[in-house]
Amino acid sequence: MTILKKNSVSDAVIRRLPRYLHKLTELYERGIENASSNFLMEELNISATGIRQDFCNFGEFGQRGCGYNITKMRARIGHILGIDEERHLIIIGVDDLGHALLQNFPFEQNGFRLEAAFDISQSVVGTSVHGITVKPMTELERYAQHHEIDVAVLTTPQVATQDIVTKLIELGVRAFWNFTNVEVPSVDSDVLLENINFADSILHLKYRILND
Amino acid sequence: MTILKKNSVSDAVIRRLPRYLHKLTELYERGIENASSNFLMEELNISATGIRQDFCNFGEFGQRGCGYNITKMRARIGHILGIDEERHLIIIGVDDLGHALLQNFPFEQNGFRLEAAFDISQSVVGTSVHGITVKPMTELERYAQHHEIDVAVLTTPQVATQDIVTKLIELGVRAFWNFTNVEVPSVDSDVLLENINFADSILHLKYRILND
Repeated sequence: MTILKKNSVSDAVIRRLPRYLHKLTELYERGIENASSNFLMEELNISATGIRQDFCNFGEFGQRGCGYNITKMRARIGHILGIDEERHLIIIGVDDLGHALLQNFPFEQNGFRLEAAFDISQSVVGTSVHGITVKPMTELERYAQHHEIDVAVLTTPQVATQDIVTKLIELGVRAFWNFTNVEVPSVDSDVLLENINFADSILHLKYRILND
Repeated sequence: MTILKKNSVSDAVIRRLPRYLHKLTELYERGIENASSNFLMEELNISATGIRQDFCNFGEFGQRGCGYNITKMRARIGHILGIDEERHLIIIGVDDLGHALLQNFPFEQNGFRLEAAFDISQSVVGTSVHGITVKPMTELERYAQHHEIDVAVLTTPQVATQDIVTKLIELGVRAFWNFTNVEVPSVDSDVLLENINFADSILHLKYRILND
Protein backbone atom coordinates (compact mmCIF):
# COMPACT_ATOMS: atom_id res chain seq x y z
CA MET A 1 0.00 0.00 0.00
CA THR A 2 1.32 3.42 -0.90
CA ILE A 3 1.92 5.68 2.07
CA LEU A 4 -0.20 8.79 1.97
CA LYS A 5 1.83 11.96 1.75
CA LYS A 6 -0.85 14.49 2.49
CA ASN A 7 1.11 17.67 2.07
CA SER A 8 2.44 16.76 -1.35
CA VAL A 9 -1.05 16.72 -2.84
CA SER A 10 -2.04 19.78 -4.85
CA ASP A 11 -4.85 22.06 -3.74
CA ALA A 12 -6.71 21.36 -6.99
CA VAL A 13 -6.86 17.64 -6.19
CA ILE A 14 -7.95 18.34 -2.62
CA ARG A 15 -10.71 20.61 -3.94
CA ARG A 16 -12.06 17.71 -6.01
CA LEU A 17 -12.13 15.21 -3.15
CA PRO A 18 -15.40 16.43 -1.58
CA ARG A 19 -17.17 15.84 -4.91
CA TYR A 20 -15.80 12.32 -5.03
CA LEU A 21 -16.92 11.77 -1.45
CA HIS A 22 -20.49 12.93 -2.16
CA LYS A 23 -20.68 10.76 -5.25
CA LEU A 24 -19.24 7.70 -3.49
CA THR A 25 -21.74 8.18 -0.65
CA GLU A 26 -24.55 8.34 -3.17
CA LEU A 27 -23.32 5.18 -4.95
CA TYR A 28 -22.92 3.43 -1.60
CA GLU A 29 -26.49 4.33 -0.69
CA ARG A 30 -27.62 2.95 -4.06
CA GLY A 31 -25.98 -0.37 -3.11
CA ILE A 32 -23.10 -0.21 -5.59
CA GLU A 33 -19.97 -1.95 -4.24
CA ASN A 34 -17.53 -1.63 -7.12
CA ALA A 35 -17.19 0.87 -9.92
CA SER A 36 -14.88 1.24 -12.90
CA SER A 37 -13.17 4.57 -13.52
CA ASN A 38 -15.27 4.83 -16.68
CA PHE A 39 -18.45 4.52 -14.63
CA LEU A 40 -17.20 7.11 -12.12
CA MET A 41 -16.22 9.35 -15.01
CA GLU A 42 -19.78 9.38 -16.30
CA GLU A 43 -21.19 9.96 -12.84
CA LEU A 44 -18.75 12.76 -12.04
CA ASN A 45 -18.36 14.24 -15.49
CA ILE A 46 -14.53 14.12 -15.22
CA SER A 47 -12.19 12.18 -17.51
CA ALA A 48 -11.32 8.62 -16.44
CA THR A 49 -7.64 9.49 -16.70
CA GLY A 50 -8.16 12.45 -14.38
CA ILE A 51 -9.91 10.26 -11.84
CA ARG A 52 -7.14 7.64 -11.95
CA GLN A 53 -4.49 10.33 -11.52
CA ASP A 54 -6.29 11.94 -8.58
CA PHE A 55 -6.73 8.62 -6.81
CA CYS A 56 -3.08 7.71 -7.39
CA ASN A 57 -2.19 10.49 -4.96
CA PHE A 58 -3.79 8.54 -2.17
CA GLY A 59 -2.59 5.02 -2.78
CA GLU A 60 -4.45 2.05 -4.17
CA PHE A 61 -8.20 1.80 -3.95
CA GLY A 62 -8.73 -0.85 -6.56
CA GLN A 63 -7.18 -3.80 -8.30
CA ARG A 64 -6.25 -3.52 -11.94
CA GLY A 65 -9.25 -4.55 -14.00
CA CYS A 66 -11.51 -4.93 -10.97
CA GLY A 67 -12.59 -1.32 -10.56
CA TYR A 68 -12.73 0.65 -7.36
CA ASN A 69 -14.08 -0.59 -4.05
CA ILE A 70 -16.66 2.03 -3.13
CA THR A 71 -16.77 1.43 0.63
CA LYS A 72 -12.99 1.51 1.04
CA MET A 73 -12.56 4.50 -1.18
CA ARG A 74 -15.29 6.42 0.60
CA ALA A 75 -13.78 5.69 4.02
CA ARG A 76 -10.32 6.66 2.83
CA ILE A 77 -11.36 9.93 1.20
CA GLY A 78 -13.54 10.76 4.21
CA HIS A 79 -10.51 10.17 6.43
CA ILE A 80 -8.25 12.33 4.24
CA LEU A 81 -10.81 15.12 4.47
CA GLY A 82 -11.01 14.60 8.21
CA ILE A 83 -14.75 13.97 8.53
CA ASP A 84 -13.96 11.43 11.26
CA GLU A 85 -12.17 14.07 13.37
CA GLU A 86 -14.69 16.35 15.02
CA ARG A 87 -13.97 20.04 15.42
CA HIS A 88 -15.90 22.73 17.34
CA LEU A 89 -17.62 25.49 15.43
CA ILE A 90 -19.56 28.66 16.23
CA ILE A 91 -21.60 30.98 14.00
CA ILE A 92 -21.31 34.76 14.22
CA GLY A 93 -24.34 36.45 12.70
CA VAL A 94 -27.82 34.90 12.59
CA ASP A 95 -29.48 36.80 9.77
CA ASP A 96 -31.17 34.82 6.95
CA LEU A 97 -27.95 33.16 5.88
CA GLY A 98 -26.77 32.32 9.39
CA HIS A 99 -30.26 31.00 10.10
CA ALA A 100 -30.16 28.85 6.96
CA LEU A 101 -26.83 27.32 8.03
CA LEU A 102 -28.04 26.70 11.59
CA GLN A 103 -31.29 25.18 10.37
CA ASN A 104 -30.15 23.10 7.42
CA PHE A 105 -26.44 22.62 7.02
CA PRO A 106 -25.25 19.11 7.99
CA PHE A 107 -22.22 20.14 10.06
CA GLU A 108 -21.95 16.70 11.71
CA GLN A 109 -21.69 14.91 8.36
CA ASN A 110 -18.70 17.08 7.62
CA GLY A 111 -16.96 16.49 10.92
CA PHE A 112 -18.00 19.62 12.79
CA ARG A 113 -20.01 20.16 15.95
CA LEU A 114 -21.98 23.40 15.87
CA GLU A 115 -21.91 24.57 19.46
CA ALA A 116 -23.00 28.21 19.64
CA ALA A 117 -24.39 31.13 17.67
CA PHE A 118 -23.96 34.83 18.37
CA ASP A 119 -25.72 37.94 17.12
CA ILE A 120 -25.94 41.58 18.06
CA SER A 121 -29.63 42.04 17.26
CA GLN A 122 -32.09 41.97 20.16
CA SER A 123 -34.71 40.46 17.86
CA VAL A 124 -32.56 37.36 17.35
CA VAL A 125 -30.72 36.93 20.66
CA GLY A 126 -32.48 34.39 22.86
CA THR A 127 -34.32 32.71 19.98
CA SER A 128 -33.61 29.05 19.39
CA VAL A 129 -32.70 27.58 16.01
CA HIS A 130 -32.27 23.84 15.59
CA GLY A 131 -31.61 23.48 19.32
CA ILE A 132 -29.09 26.34 19.52
CA THR A 133 -30.06 29.41 21.54
CA VAL A 134 -28.57 32.55 20.01
CA LYS A 135 -26.29 34.40 22.45
CA PRO A 136 -25.51 38.13 22.49
CA MET A 137 -22.12 39.20 21.14
CA THR A 138 -21.27 40.53 24.60
CA GLU A 139 -20.97 36.93 25.77
CA LEU A 140 -18.46 35.95 23.09
CA GLU A 141 -15.34 36.64 25.14
CA ARG A 142 -16.52 34.68 28.17
CA TYR A 143 -17.68 31.84 25.95
CA ALA A 144 -14.26 31.64 24.27
CA GLN A 145 -12.53 31.45 27.66
CA HIS A 146 -14.49 28.33 28.58
CA HIS A 147 -14.93 26.54 25.25
CA GLU A 148 -12.75 25.40 22.42
CA ILE A 149 -13.52 27.20 19.14
CA ASP A 150 -11.85 25.62 16.12
CA VAL A 151 -13.82 27.47 13.46
CA ALA A 152 -15.90 30.65 13.43
CA VAL A 153 -18.46 30.95 10.64
CA LEU A 154 -18.84 34.60 9.62
CA THR A 155 -22.17 35.82 8.23
CA THR A 156 -21.80 39.29 9.70
CA PRO A 157 -22.39 42.64 7.94
CA GLN A 158 -19.32 43.75 5.99
CA VAL A 159 -18.63 46.80 8.14
CA ALA A 160 -18.40 44.71 11.30
CA THR A 161 -16.32 41.86 9.91
CA GLN A 162 -12.76 43.09 10.42
CA ASP A 163 -13.29 43.99 14.08
CA ILE A 164 -14.94 40.65 14.77
CA VAL A 165 -12.13 38.72 13.08
CA THR A 166 -9.50 40.66 15.04
CA LYS A 167 -11.37 39.95 18.27
CA LEU A 168 -11.76 36.24 17.50
CA ILE A 169 -8.07 35.88 16.64
CA GLU A 170 -7.22 37.52 19.97
CA LEU A 171 -9.48 34.93 21.59
CA GLY A 172 -7.50 32.15 19.92
CA VAL A 173 -9.66 31.24 16.90
CA ARG A 174 -7.45 30.02 14.05
CA ALA A 175 -9.92 29.19 11.26
CA PHE A 176 -12.76 31.11 9.63
CA TRP A 177 -15.48 30.09 7.20
CA ASN A 178 -16.18 33.48 5.69
CA PHE A 179 -19.50 34.31 3.97
CA THR A 180 -19.23 38.09 4.33
CA ASN A 181 -17.89 38.86 0.83
CA VAL A 182 -15.22 40.87 2.61
CA GLU A 183 -11.59 40.32 1.79
CA VAL A 184 -10.15 39.80 5.27
CA PRO A 185 -6.69 41.42 5.15
CA SER A 186 -3.61 39.29 5.47
CA VAL A 187 -3.58 37.73 8.90
CA ASP A 188 -0.96 35.59 10.63
CA SER A 189 0.13 32.66 8.53
CA ASP A 190 -1.30 30.31 11.13
CA VAL A 191 -4.84 31.64 10.58
CA LEU A 192 -6.93 29.85 7.95
CA LEU A 193 -9.56 31.61 5.89
CA GLU A 194 -11.99 29.72 3.70
CA ASN A 195 -14.08 32.20 1.72
CA ILE A 196 -17.42 31.63 0.07
CA ASN A 197 -17.82 34.72 -2.03
CA PHE A 198 -21.17 34.91 -3.81
CA ALA A 199 -20.18 37.94 -5.90
CA ASP A 200 -17.02 36.26 -7.22
CA SER A 201 -19.11 33.27 -8.23
CA ILE A 202 -21.85 35.15 -10.07
CA LEU A 203 -19.28 37.32 -11.87
CA HIS A 204 -17.55 34.16 -13.02
CA LEU A 205 -20.88 32.85 -14.32
CA LYS A 206 -21.47 36.15 -16.12
CA TYR A 207 -18.07 35.92 -17.77
CA ARG A 208 -18.89 32.41 -18.99
CA ILE A 209 -22.31 33.51 -20.27
CA LEU A 210 -20.65 36.21 -22.35
CA ASN A 211 -17.64 34.19 -23.53
CA ASP A 212 -18.38 30.46 -23.67
CA MET B 1 -3.05 48.85 -26.96
CA THR B 2 -3.06 45.07 -26.81
CA ILE B 3 -6.18 43.50 -28.22
CA LEU B 4 -8.08 41.49 -25.65
CA LYS B 5 -8.34 37.82 -26.49
CA LYS B 6 -10.92 36.78 -23.96
CA ASN B 7 -11.05 33.09 -24.65
CA SER B 8 -7.32 32.56 -24.37
CA VAL B 9 -7.33 33.58 -20.71
CA SER B 10 -7.17 30.75 -18.18
CA ASP B 11 -10.03 30.05 -15.81
CA ALA B 12 -7.72 30.63 -12.81
CA VAL B 13 -7.04 34.19 -13.97
CA ILE B 14 -10.74 34.82 -14.59
CA ARG B 15 -11.53 33.53 -11.10
CA ARG B 16 -9.18 36.16 -9.64
CA LEU B 17 -10.68 39.09 -11.57
CA PRO B 18 -13.70 39.62 -9.26
CA ARG B 19 -11.33 40.05 -6.30
CA TYR B 20 -9.37 42.65 -8.25
CA LEU B 21 -12.60 44.39 -9.16
CA HIS B 22 -13.77 44.57 -5.52
CA LYS B 23 -10.40 45.87 -4.39
CA LEU B 24 -10.20 48.45 -7.19
CA THR B 25 -13.71 49.65 -6.35
CA GLU B 26 -12.71 50.01 -2.72
CA LEU B 27 -9.54 51.95 -3.65
CA TYR B 28 -11.53 54.14 -6.03
CA GLU B 29 -13.99 54.92 -3.24
CA ARG B 30 -11.05 55.81 -0.99
CA GLY B 31 -9.98 58.36 -3.63
CA ILE B 32 -6.86 56.52 -4.83
CA GLU B 33 -6.15 57.18 -8.52
CA ASN B 34 -2.92 55.29 -9.11
CA ALA B 35 -1.38 52.27 -7.44
CA SER B 36 1.88 50.36 -7.84
CA SER B 37 1.78 46.60 -8.21
CA ASN B 38 3.55 46.44 -4.84
CA PHE B 39 0.73 48.40 -3.23
CA LEU B 40 -1.91 46.21 -4.91
CA MET B 41 0.05 43.15 -3.79
CA GLU B 42 -0.22 44.19 -0.15
CA GLU B 43 -3.90 45.02 -0.50
CA LEU B 44 -4.71 41.77 -2.30
CA ASN B 45 -2.22 39.48 -0.59
CA ILE B 46 -0.96 38.19 -3.98
CA SER B 47 2.59 38.50 -5.31
CA ALA B 48 3.37 41.60 -7.38
CA THR B 49 4.64 39.34 -10.17
CA GLY B 50 1.35 37.44 -10.13
CA ILE B 51 -0.62 40.65 -10.41
CA ARG B 52 1.54 41.90 -13.31
CA GLN B 53 1.14 38.57 -15.12
CA ASP B 54 -2.63 38.51 -14.63
CA PHE B 55 -3.04 42.06 -15.89
CA CYS B 56 -0.81 41.34 -18.90
CA ASN B 57 -3.59 39.08 -20.19
CA PHE B 58 -5.82 42.09 -20.65
CA GLY B 59 -3.50 44.63 -22.19
CA GLU B 60 -1.93 47.72 -20.69
CA PHE B 61 -3.41 49.42 -17.67
CA GLY B 62 -0.37 51.40 -16.61
CA GLN B 63 2.80 53.01 -17.80
CA ARG B 64 6.12 51.55 -16.77
CA GLY B 65 7.14 53.13 -13.47
CA CYS B 66 3.87 55.04 -13.07
CA GLY B 67 1.75 52.32 -11.51
CA TYR B 68 -1.77 51.35 -12.50
CA ASN B 69 -4.61 53.75 -13.25
CA ILE B 70 -7.36 52.60 -10.88
CA THR B 71 -10.34 54.06 -12.75
CA LYS B 72 -9.30 52.64 -16.11
CA MET B 73 -8.41 49.27 -14.70
CA ARG B 74 -11.66 49.03 -12.79
CA ALA B 75 -13.70 49.90 -15.89
CA ARG B 76 -11.77 47.41 -18.00
CA ILE B 77 -12.04 44.51 -15.56
CA GLY B 78 -15.72 45.31 -14.98
CA HIS B 79 -16.23 45.20 -18.75
CA ILE B 80 -14.34 41.89 -19.07
CA LEU B 81 -16.59 40.44 -16.37
CA GLY B 82 -19.62 41.86 -18.12
CA ILE B 83 -21.04 43.92 -15.28
CA ASP B 84 -22.08 46.52 -17.87
CA GLU B 85 -24.19 43.97 -19.78
CA GLU B 86 -27.39 43.29 -17.92
CA ARG B 87 -28.88 39.81 -17.83
CA HIS B 88 -32.24 38.60 -16.48
CA LEU B 89 -32.34 36.35 -13.45
CA ILE B 90 -34.95 34.47 -11.45
CA ILE B 91 -34.72 32.65 -8.10
CA ILE B 92 -36.25 29.24 -7.56
CA GLY B 93 -36.75 28.54 -3.85
CA VAL B 94 -37.36 31.23 -1.24
CA ASP B 95 -36.31 29.51 1.97
CA ASP B 96 -33.81 31.26 4.29
CA LEU B 97 -31.07 31.25 1.68
CA GLY B 98 -33.28 32.37 -1.19
CA HIS B 99 -34.67 35.06 1.09
CA ALA B 100 -31.15 36.20 2.01
CA LEU B 101 -30.24 36.53 -1.67
CA LEU B 102 -33.46 38.39 -2.50
CA GLN B 103 -33.05 40.71 0.45
CA ASN B 104 -29.35 41.43 0.43
CA PHE B 105 -27.43 40.35 -2.64
CA PRO B 106 -26.47 43.25 -4.94
CA PHE B 107 -27.48 41.65 -8.24
CA GLU B 108 -27.46 45.01 -10.08
CA GLN B 109 -23.84 45.72 -9.10
CA ASN B 110 -22.93 42.45 -10.77
CA GLY B 111 -24.84 43.09 -13.96
CA PHE B 112 -28.00 41.12 -13.26
CA ARG B 113 -31.62 42.16 -12.95
CA LEU B 114 -33.54 40.01 -10.48
CA GLU B 115 -37.00 39.77 -11.99
CA ALA B 116 -38.95 37.00 -10.28
CA ALA B 117 -38.92 34.46 -7.48
CA PHE B 118 -40.75 31.15 -7.30
CA ASP B 119 -41.54 28.76 -4.48
CA ILE B 120 -43.82 25.81 -3.88
CA SER B 121 -44.71 26.63 -0.28
CA GLN B 122 -48.06 28.32 0.40
CA SER B 123 -46.50 30.13 3.36
CA VAL B 124 -44.09 31.95 1.05
CA VAL B 125 -46.04 32.40 -2.19
CA GLY B 126 -47.58 35.87 -2.36
CA THR B 127 -45.19 37.40 0.16
CA SER B 128 -43.03 40.25 -1.02
CA VAL B 129 -39.27 40.42 -0.51
CA HIS B 130 -37.34 43.50 -1.53
CA GLY B 131 -40.09 44.44 -3.98
CA ILE B 132 -40.41 40.97 -5.54
CA THR B 133 -43.65 39.07 -4.96
CA VAL B 134 -43.02 35.33 -4.74
CA LYS B 135 -44.91 33.39 -7.41
CA PRO B 136 -46.09 29.76 -7.19
CA MET B 137 -44.08 27.17 -9.14
CA THR B 138 -47.19 26.47 -11.21
CA GLU B 139 -46.70 29.85 -12.88
CA LEU B 140 -43.12 29.14 -13.96
CA GLU B 141 -43.95 27.82 -17.41
CA ARG B 142 -46.20 30.71 -18.33
CA TYR B 143 -43.66 33.17 -16.96
CA ALA B 144 -40.88 31.66 -19.09
CA GLN B 145 -43.03 31.94 -22.21
CA HIS B 146 -43.36 35.69 -21.75
CA HIS B 147 -40.02 36.69 -20.18
CA GLU B 148 -36.38 36.20 -20.94
CA ILE B 149 -34.59 34.13 -18.28
CA ASP B 150 -30.81 34.19 -18.63
CA VAL B 151 -30.01 32.66 -15.24
CA ALA B 152 -31.98 30.63 -12.72
CA VAL B 153 -30.70 30.69 -9.14
CA LEU B 154 -31.37 27.34 -7.47
CA THR B 155 -31.91 27.20 -3.70
CA THR B 156 -34.33 24.31 -3.90
CA PRO B 157 -34.35 21.14 -1.76
CA GLN B 158 -31.98 18.51 -3.15
CA VAL B 159 -34.71 16.01 -4.05
CA ALA B 160 -36.49 18.53 -6.25
CA THR B 161 -33.44 19.96 -8.01
CA GLN B 162 -33.01 17.61 -10.96
CA ASP B 163 -36.64 17.88 -12.06
CA ILE B 164 -36.57 21.65 -11.80
CA VAL B 165 -33.36 21.89 -13.83
CA THR B 166 -34.77 19.61 -16.51
CA LYS B 167 -37.92 21.72 -16.66
CA LEU B 168 -35.99 25.00 -16.84
CA ILE B 169 -33.75 23.70 -19.62
CA GLU B 170 -36.87 22.70 -21.56
CA LEU B 171 -38.10 26.25 -21.05
CA GLY B 172 -34.89 27.58 -22.58
CA VAL B 173 -32.80 28.51 -19.52
CA ARG B 174 -29.11 28.08 -20.30
CA ALA B 175 -27.35 29.12 -17.07
CA PHE B 176 -27.76 28.12 -13.43
CA TRP B 177 -26.35 29.50 -10.21
CA ASN B 178 -26.63 26.40 -8.08
CA PHE B 179 -26.72 26.54 -4.25
CA THR B 180 -28.37 23.14 -3.77
CA ASN B 181 -25.22 21.11 -3.04
CA VAL B 182 -26.50 18.71 -5.68
CA GLU B 183 -24.25 17.62 -8.49
CA VAL B 184 -26.43 18.36 -11.49
CA PRO B 185 -25.66 15.54 -13.97
CA SER B 186 -23.97 16.33 -17.20
CA VAL B 187 -26.23 18.51 -19.25
CA ASP B 188 -25.90 19.83 -22.80
CA SER B 189 -22.60 21.53 -23.41
CA ASP B 190 -24.44 24.79 -24.01
CA VAL B 191 -25.82 24.83 -20.45
CA LEU B 192 -23.68 26.61 -17.85
CA LEU B 193 -23.61 25.57 -14.20
CA GLU B 194 -21.94 27.68 -11.55
CA ASN B 195 -22.00 25.80 -8.26
CA ILE B 196 -21.63 27.22 -4.77
CA ASN B 197 -21.18 24.11 -2.70
CA PHE B 198 -21.01 24.80 1.03
CA ALA B 199 -20.03 21.21 1.91
CA ASP B 200 -17.09 21.20 -0.51
CA SER B 201 -15.87 24.42 1.01
CA ILE B 202 -16.08 23.36 4.65
CA LEU B 203 -14.43 20.01 3.87
CA HIS B 204 -11.59 21.90 2.22
CA LEU B 205 -11.25 24.02 5.35
CA LYS B 206 -11.21 20.88 7.48
CA TYR B 207 -8.45 19.39 5.38
CA ARG B 208 -6.39 22.56 5.83
CA ILE B 209 -7.01 22.58 9.60
CA LEU B 210 -5.68 19.05 9.82
CA ASN B 211 -2.78 19.40 7.38
CA ASP B 212 -1.50 22.99 7.20
